[in-house]
Amino acid sequence: MIGRRLVNGVEGTGIAADDRGLAYGDGLFETMVAVEGGLRHFDLHMARLADGCRRLEIPQPSIEVVADDCRRVLEGLGSATVKLIVTRGVGPRGYAPPDEPTVTRIVMAASAHSHEFDTSRPMVVQLCRTRLALSEQLAGMKHLNRLEQVMASAELRHSGMDEGLMLAMDGRLVCATACNLFLVRSGRLLTPMIRDCGVAGVMRQVVLRAADTLGIPATITDLEPDALSGADEVFLTNAVRGIRPVVGVSGIGQYVGNEVTRRLIEHLAPGSA
Amino acid sequence: MIGRRLVNGVEGTGIAADDRGLAYGDGLFETMVAVEGGLRHFDLHMARLADGCRRLEIPQPSIEVVADDCRRVLEGLGSATVKLIVTRGVGPRGYAPPDEPTVTRIVMAASAHSHEFDTSRPMVVQLCRTRLALSEQLAGMKHLNRLEQVMASAELRHSGMDEGLMLAMDGRLVCATACNLFLVRSGRLLTPMIRDCGVAGVMRQVVLRAADTLGIPATITDLEPDALSGADEVFLTNAVRGIRPVVGVSGIGQYVGNEVTRRLIEHLAPGSA
Repeated sequence: MIGRRLVNGVEGTGIAADDRGLAYGDGLFETMVAVEGGLRHFDLHMARLADGCRRLEIPQPSIEVVADDCRRVLEGLGSATVKLIVTRGVGPRGYAPPDEPTVTRIVMAASAHSHEFDTSRPMVVQLCRTRLALSEQLAGMKHLNRLEQVMASAELRHSGMDEGLMLAMDGRLVCATACNLFLVRSGRLLTPMIRDCGVAGVMRQVVLRAADTLGIPATITDLEPDALSGADEVFLTNAVRGIRPVVGVSGIGQYVGNEVTRRLIEHLAPGSA
Repeated sequence: MIGRRLVNGVEGTGIAADDRGLAYGDGLFETMVAVEGGLRHFDLHMARLADGCRRLEIPQPSIEVVADDCRRVLEGLGSATVKLIVTRGVGPRGYAPPDEPTVTRIVMAASAHSHEFDTSRPMVVQLCRTRLALSEQLAGMKHLNRLEQVMASAELRHSGMDEGLMLAMDGRLVCATACNLFLVRSGRLLTPMIRDCGVAGVMRQVVLRAADTLGIPATITDLEPDALSGADEVFLTNAVRGIRPVVGVSGIGQYVGNEVTRRLIEHLAPGSA
């Protein structure tokens, strides 16, 4: 299950106990999928990482170096996930970022369960009680401050649910614990704006681009939870799991339609893109 | 500067790259002060840790084991700080907490700069632009999701300021980046409620208890930033730095009074308590 790990390119090393990634969640991550040796949407993952590094003022590791790390951890693995963590590195005690940080770069591979990639497996989800706090300064980034997602995921334990939908503190419907959210209503895609909470998912971007190519109109807007009741189709997206149809939201609705979701899945299936 | 480090009681070890403390900030910390071998307010630090562990459902490490780790890292050091980090340990990929986590316990000592303990050194502070997102589920705990404090501290770089005051997203005055905040008005202590953001500081609790002993009335309430203009005295508190008078808030006010602050500092001086 657990594959190779590189820390700043060195195999088998641990992380320093005073790394700011651990101390403060002062860093970013990306989880990518490798299929037949190639990393899917590597450019989009690197673009999001670059944006996060710029916003947090963390020096961005070279893309060539990251790509090389990924190649090394993937050697000999078939389908796998690769997780990249970039932190502001070690530093003296205190929140203040060092003037010239030396980033820590971690690349880990894990062979993936085939069911994770099986987009035909529909999901049943519930609404989580844990809400997303609002902060424009942190929204969109895949940073290492993820206690909200941890607490929301803990709600799903022993529930039989595949995922949990999350509302913002002000009640807007935003995403799932580890996925972005799309609704389809009257042939139109709807997905929540990521402006003050949530992660700007790579697969979300891929789906919006695919919709454009396919001539499916899309609206990126604030959504209230009752939008779920009026939806014809609901699906979740995530870089590892792709597009996953939702057949039911516990206590809210069931979705039998799948026309738009199917078109997107087929368009993005390996070999069709 | 950097002293001994123990990871689960073992010296010189690193942290696993897949520790959830690093991956998600899924853990808690305490920073304590050792003076002449004794840890100041150890019981209060352990009580806050216990509360955080309960709220995050992280198994609490035994107090005896933590105390023993602290003794070991402090051996041969004079005045020092001890940082304890408790994480939910390693886990498989994904936010969902493992059913039976094996916590990671990190104890690190650093010899302290004497000026850090010098409560006669007054501070000049500014208001930070970075605001605190609101979440009752996370408020009060000293958890490892600290990007807001990192970003606020980054604002202080090259400013000459000793600390930065932070507002909540709704504009309330809450704390400083690494301290709790007290105002004195007409002989009465005022400190912001820690209900939906901020950390419930150990020294904040110590000061409130001392005020009670000394017959200084105290009000724990929501405060707006303009409370700073009407204050006679302002001070910050933190377990390492103790009580630190603020003589000026940039662009807002200067404080020459220090009667209540002095009484509290003298009451809490080592040997007087």
